[in-house]
Amino acid sequence: MASIQVWQYDLVYNAFSFTIAVMASATIFFFLGRSQVAPAYRTALTLTGLVTFIALYHYVRIFNSWDASFTVVSGQIKDSGIKFNDAYRYVDWLLTVPLLLIELILVMRLSPSETIAKSTKLGLLAALMVVLGYPGEISEVSSTRWLWWGLAMLPFLVIVYDLFVGLSDAIAKQPASARGLVSLARYVTVISWCFYPIVFIFPMIGFTGSGAITAVQVGYTVADIVAKAAFGVLIYMIARRKSEAEGFVDGPGQLATAK
Amino acid sequence: MASIQVWQYDLVYNAFSFTIAVMASATIFFFLGRSQVAPAYRTALTLTGLVTFIALYHYVRIFNSWDASFTVVSGQIKDSGIKFNDAYRYVDWLLTVPLLLIELILVMRLSPSETIAKSTKLGLLAALMVVLGYPGEISEVSSTRWLWWGLAMLPFLVIVYDLFVGLSDAIAKQPASARGLVSLARYVTVISWCFYPIVFIFPMIGFTGSGAITAVQVGYTVADIVAKAAFGVLIYMIARRKSEAEGFVDGPGQLATAK
Repeated sequence: MASIQVWQYDLVYNAFSFTIAVMASATIFFFLGRSQVAPAYRTALTLTGLVTFIALYHYVRIFNSWDASFTVVSGQIKDSGIKFNDAYRYVDWLLTVPLLLIELILVMRLSPSETIAKSTKLGLLAALMVVLGYPGEISEVSSTRWLWWGLAMLPFLVIVYDLFVGLSDAIAKQPASARGLVSLARYVTVISWCFYPIVFIFPMIGFTGSGAITAVQVGYTVADIVAKAAFGVLIYMIARRKSEAEGFVDGPGQLATAK
Repeated sequence: MASIQVWQYDLVYNAFSFTIAVMASATIFFFLGRSQVAPAYRTALTLTGLVTFIALYHYVRIFNSWDASFTVVSGQIKDSGIKFNDAYRYVDWLLTVPLLLIELILVMRLSPSETIAKSTKLGLLAALMVVLGYPGEISEVSSTRWLWWGLAMLPFLVIVYDLFVGLSDAIAKQPASARGLVSLARYVTVISWCFYPIVFIFPMIGFTGSGAITAVQVGYTVADIVAKAAFGVLIYMIARRKSEAEGFVDGPGQLATAK
């Protein structure tokens, strides 16, 4: 790993620590929120919380790996010789990216057969996208990086097409109070996911050495926060609005006061 | 332990970390899912979550043991002299393999006497299978490995026979919406369990040194994910379908709108 400035090391270190706090809080919020939505939306919130939980686990590992990679003594920073483990991000995405799409499908409450068909298709495409990105990520050869980047973009484009064309009928059928949010969730998915292929090409477009490392780590971290925690809040809001639209009343206490 | 390549060490390391994330998420999913199924199926989901929880515990131990067995500094890998502990897998299986069969029996909802008789029989056979495999696993002598492999296959074959012949009447009596899934669960059990005796013989059929170690560790890990987490999702889906077929309505909120 290229030698790094103390401010760069600190920026990445603090970004990782911030993300641990975000993912842990988001997980608790989504799990506690399950009881506040109609039963039909609880699996969507379970998966939303699992995505941030899985990210929490990996950010703890990523943080520890970053910490072990460098030694800071008397304001001087040195490589410790222990390699920073890039693979944690990819094993995280392999689990969380399919789950993020399934969250969105579940909160739309399609028919059971459509739910299974769309979850399977989009989930497998998402996993394929992550698997195709990894050989590029670990390469330092620009042409190899571009090759795998291009291959990973193919399932990505199919997913985008499916979100915008394949789901438009289903979005039109959402209750009026939730329709705008569901459509927004779709845009947040696509826009936040665009961060990843952009961050991926940083080392190929002139970012070098410790600048590239810092930009890539901070870039992926921001993208993860938007795509997992902020997106999850949208899923929670959609589930709340739809529960209300369907007449869900939360608990016997509320029943008594509602009369 | 034979000297190992960095990529082999990393592959096994990342596979173990991935499995920790999978088993932890699966456990949370099954425990949260308990309230979404009829009370008759909650014990099945409790056991499903316990299986992945026990596996989570053991994969943390296995990960730490793997990490302690090697030292990687400046891209060089060395044996640390601390032995990787194979026994964690066997103590895991001794607990989880009987529980996996009991999950399947419980979700079928047989009569109480049949449930007890089949759980006892299949549970004891599964434990015997694991116990007979261990003396072979820790041996480096091919003929000793084959002997215990053959002995462990005997209870395995009785279990397979029982799943396909002994349970076929019970499967025919499952509600139509769940019958296909119950039959699929039986196939997933048998097929994923076949991985173990195949992985076991890798060192006896030409895989040697660090290649054998890598293949065995990754092979058992993939088998555990399929046999425990993916199989558990099937058990959850069966419990959901059967709960719906039996008229289970989840929570007072939905009751209110159902009127």
